[in-house]
Amino acid sequence: MIAEILSTGEEVLAGRIMDTNSSHIAAQLELAGVRVTRHICVGDDLDAIAGALCEIKTRAELAVVTGGLGPTHDDCTAAAAALAGGRKLIESAQAVKWIQKWFQSHGLAMSPSNRKQAMLPEGADGLYNAAGTAPGFCMRMERCRFFFLPGVPHEMRRMLADEVMPEVRKDCLDRQRPTQRTLLSVIGLPESVLGEKLAEFEQRFSHLKLGICASFPTIDVHIEGQHEDAGRLEMEMQSARRWVLEKLGDAVFSVQGRELAAEIGALLVKRKQTLAVAESCTGGMIATMLTDTGGSSDYFLAGAVTYANAAKSDMLSVPAELVRLRGAVDIQVAEQMAAGIRKTGQSTWAIATTGVAGPTGGTPEKPVGTVCIGVAGPQFAIGHLLIFPDFGRHANRRMFAHAALDLLRRGLLDLPLPAYAAVEKPT
Amino acid sequence: MIAEILSTGEEVLAGRIMDTNSSHIAAQLELAGVRVTRHICVGDDLDAIAGALCEIKTRAELAVVTGGLGPTHDDCTAAAAALAGGRKLIESAQAVKWIQKWFQSHGLAMSPSNRKQAMLPEGADGLYNAAGTAPGFCMRMERCRFFFLPGVPHEMRRMLADEVMPEVRKDCLDRQRPTQRTLLSVIGLPESVLGEKLAEFEQRFSHLKLGICASFPTIDVHIEGQHEDAGRLEMEMQSARRWVLEKLGDAVFSVQGRELAAEIGALLVKRKQTLAVAESCTGGMIATMLTDTGGSSDYFLAGAVTYANAAKSDMLSVPAELVRLRGAVDIQVAEQMAAGIRKTGQSTWAIATTGVAGPTGGTPEKPVGTVCIGVAGPQFAIGHLLIFPDFGRHANRRMFAHAALDLLRRGLLDLPLPAYAAVEKPT
Repeated sequence: MIAEILSTGEEVLAGRIMDTNSSHIAAQLELAGVRVTRHICVGDDLDAIAGALCEIKTRAELAVVTGGLGPTHDDCTAAAAALAGGRKLIESAQAVKWIQKWFQSHGLAMSPSNRKQAMLPEGADGLYNAAGTAPGFCMRMERCRFFFLPGVPHEMRRMLADEVMPEVRKDCLDRQRPTQRTLLSVIGLPESVLGEKLAEFEQRFSHLKLGICASFPTIDVHIEGQHEDAGRLEMEMQSARRWVLEKLGDAVFSVQGRELAAEIGALLVKRKQTLAVAESCTGGMIATMLTDTGGSSDYFLAGAVTYANAAKSDMLSVPAELVRLRGAVDIQVAEQMAAGIRKTGQSTWAIATTGVAGPTGGTPEKPVGTVCIGVAGPQFAIGHLLIFPDFGRHANRRMFAHAALDLLRRGLLDLPLPAYAAVEKPT
Repeated sequence: MIAEILSTGEEVLAGRIMDTNSSHIAAQLELAGVRVTRHICVGDDLDAIAGALCEIKTRAELAVVTGGLGPTHDDCTAAAAALAGGRKLIESAQAVKWIQKWFQSHGLAMSPSNRKQAMLPEGADGLYNAAGTAPGFCMRMERCRFFFLPGVPHEMRRMLADEVMPEVRKDCLDRQRPTQRTLLSVIGLPESVLGEKLAEFEQRFSHLKLGICASFPTIDVHIEGQHEDAGRLEMEMQSARRWVLEKLGDAVFSVQGRELAAEIGALLVKRKQTLAVAESCTGGMIATMLTDTGGSSDYFLAGAVTYANAAKSDMLSVPAELVRLRGAVDIQVAEQMAAGIRKTGQSTWAIATTGVAGPTGGTPEKPVGTVCIGVAGPQFAIGHLLIFPDFGRHANRRMFAHAALDLLRRGLLDLPLPAYAAVEKPT
């Protein structure tokens, strides 16, 4: 089944907010076996939306449309759907009830403008919105089934899960061929090198497709295929997976689609070990990545964001004299930060970062992009000095955070240091 | 001038990564006075890309295309551009030189597959990529000028700024009328309430346009207008700005387009004061937000991510007995966490969070969405209990982090507590 996704709204069109909805919807549809072929975004404009709907109804069998169902005057998606489908807008009694119920259950008064949200194209089926005031709706135009959802992400996500995906899965069941998908996540290899290592893939595995997707600073390697013969497909997938793992070696950090931080969490849970972090240049980003996963309190104990030098001494017992003599961006300081937070946090493992994220603060010796990473465990504490190209402050911080987590992964699994780590022994 | 943005790549299409490029490009084009009318995303597919290019060349005068310029076999944007423009692909001598130079200056060996990146449509002008190996290119098809850039965000951003925007601005100069833009950033008002407060805007200010853009959990209010008479336009903008500020009151936290964390940074710098944070449920997110701005070390001193209860006692001196008796999600615990990190961090101000981000851990009394926030300053330390609807773990953490920063802003500016804060005095 072929699907397109349409998001509407000046805010996304003009780049004032990011469209997080389309990628979420695409991922859910792909999981259900639907092939997404196009995303479109247009503004809060009746003709632009109606025009896009008319294009989509000739190309796709399924469409998910977000945004423009709100109570304000620039919300015109229902009117555009009516226009594209040649129908009238009429008030849906069911939708009115849903909206009233929402306001009652939240102890709030219903604004007159909220009643506009119950005006749906004639013949459309309302979709219940448990998380907000805007009901969605579903209607068929030509060969395409359209689902219209609000643009507020948490409302959209819940409706997609509860109201849309069960219908989509029902539609897919009949037509679906056996499908196999594998995702390997890689850190520390440039995209071109990775591509060359896997260059023979298509010759070797004729029923499978390889996709290489850079998601800075990690790379996702997707393998997928469809074939009538499920057994043969599975065998080919297994051998492809083995072949890719052999080519990429320990640069592969997950074979289950986990983020690097979540993968480390899984490793720690398995060993019943724990982690603490001390961050200077990454400013809390490593802790945020680690705690983004539910249940992370099982292994993540504590973090210290020691931005000021005094905090490095007070919170981590790094000797002030050491920082004064060698500067804050230093392998010995990183090592002591890791050892310090490991002790304070009473954890099995600890990592620490101190570096130059930019845009200012670089020197010829330690240019922007330089980071010192400390790793401390039951057997050792060590500092590493790494110098990356300057990717800009935000990307530099992401790079530093991922490098620290990768060095910990290598410590946990007893793997050799990666090529990108120009390691120096503490002097 | 009318522009469209095309992003290519299976990873974005299938929802495996977010398209951060299109929103960045759109914002830059809009700032230059270009009207962006559509974003499209298609996969790494020769026909899909060529098809989209053929549509765009009939609709738009300017297009920015990203992705598919890499060295691997699924990168086919240059071939698609050649197909759509009816041209051959030929090796650009200049592009070969650029790629060789990049590898030399990074002390790396050039892979044979990188040479493929120098194959451009005949007659296209190469665009220099200072940050990576993939040169871009520029070509005209019908009435539309196309700029092709790599998909790697930091490479794309730099090329857009250095190679594309100067050309776009030149093209815009003749046709541009005087333009005025204002951005007010709001926290703590639902979008529908905000829309109703500003309902009369369009009647009052006939030459200005109002845009309301939810960027959970904050809302951006954009005012913009164009008019031949620059003086009259400026006067209208000033009075519109005053009117909106009066309607929204202290829910407006920035009139300069700053993020909430950066706005607090600016407030602290002005007063020569400093900040430390203690985070449980937000897990480092507040520290990350605060340190995302260059120069944040002037006011941000230290953070503690006290995920384990032992860390709350050891790092923040919260009495273990208090946590044992009242639980970790408690206003007194939040207050003590704030007081503790203020002392450890030696800062003027401190904030602390402890709450239930979900998906598990909720109770009838403290459901998922409950957060206790502590604010400590020179005169006081106080805990607040807030209960938000459950937006999902990631969004809950964002909500908690923003609420904590907003309570600090209100403390700094002596503003009353917001409507969303159901405050309880410590018992």
